[in-house]
Amino acid sequence: MTVFTVQTYRRNEMLDITQKIQGFISSSGVKSGLVIIYVPHTTAAITVNEGHDLDVAADFLEKLSRLAPQGEQFYRHFEGNSDAHVKASLVGCSVSLPVDNSSLVLGTWQKIFLCEFDGPRTRKVFLKVLRA
Amino acid sequence: MTVFTVQTYRRNEMLDITQKIQGFISSSGVKSGLVIIYVPHTTAAITVNEGHDLDVAADFLEKLSRLAPQGEQFYRHFEGNSDAHVKASLVGCSVSLPVDNSSLVLGTWQKIFLCEFDGPRTRKVFLKVLRA
Amino acid sequence: MTVFTVQTYRRNEMLDITQKIQGFISSSGVKSGLVIIYVPHTTAAITVNEGHDLDVAADFLEKLSRLAPQGEQFYRHFEGNSDAHVKASLVGCSVSLPVDNSSLVLGTWQKIFLCEFDGPRTRKVFLKVLRA
Repeated sequence: MTVFTVQTYRRNEMLDITQKIQGFISSSGVKSGLVIIYVPHTTAAITVNEGHDLDVAADFLEKLSRLAPQGEQFYRHFEGNSDAHVKASLVGCSVSLPVDNSSLVLGTWQKIFLCEFDGPRTRKVFLKVLRA
Repeated sequence: MTVFTVQTYRRNEMLDITQKIQGFISSSGVKSGLVIIYVPHTTAAITVNEGHDLDVAADFLEKLSRLAPQGEQFYRHFEGNSDAHVKASLVGCSVSLPVDNSSLVLGTWQKIFLCEFDGPRTRKVFLKVLRA
Repeated sequence: MTVFTVQTYRRNEMLDITQKIQGFISSSGVKSGLVIIYVPHTTAAITVNEGHDLDVAADFLEKLSRLAPQGEQFYRHFEGNSDAHVKASLVGCSVSLPVDNSSLVLGTWQKIFLCEFDGPRTRKVFLKVLRA
């Protein structure tokens, strides 16, 4: 299993980690199979979305923050970051993607993002590749 | 890896693709393992939900459109489909399911749906089966 | 494939199933690979989130119920549990996690939860482990 770290700089942020993951797959020697991309955190997530116009990620983060605002009165969790935990489970802590021809199988506009919901922090990303 | 296409006819739509996936698994010869079902798009998604009463899918699409309406003023993405990108990341671009006895392991009421959020379009679905 | 059952006691509830899954992985003999955790239900889900302060799960359930209330007038599904189906697709019916050193790879605060959205019921959880 491979681990790499990502430094985030804002409370809510989406960071394109596609190239790091592709580099790892290339060096793994696996030609066909799947990769799990996984964050061992409860206030971060992994998603795949459009990565060419950065406004898409900004719109997604803004919409999530309107659906789950930070300071809702009913939150009971003492750390004050329940909104980040909500977002983490709505988006999900892992994504599995096919690997073919030693490459990630991604659509033209797709990029893989680490979603930070309670930054800035140093986050870990775990990768595991299985052969088909 | 197998690819098939699905034609959608409305802007928001859920299409039951269970039989196509089961047919592929049967012909793959894999008795036990997992299948990844994946869309290489950023305004579509894959989900598993009740497929016998079509009102369930209709209710889900309507609720999503109320949570993420199309024309919100704060959206910055120039293409005007930020709502579809939001829905794609809330639902997710892939689902992994177990395969056992050469079949999808699905509950009595479960069906696999391609979710269209910015149709009508021709969509691709990628399938990859791994042996246990 | 392994199946175990979980009894839920409330309409909305999150149950920590981490230990059961870890026990299964230990007894499977798989040292490195991945595990799929999957519910064959359309009004339940699987998620990974903070499991040490139970208020996090309570806050998540409350927020979901505010985003998708039970009795919305536009729901057409005759069983009256469209809210539960909505939540199931927002959270997702399965999670795949890496297995390393014969153990689940989980972060310090992460636990695996069965999410009940239409209980009380007896729910099944399916587990499948693949070797890397």
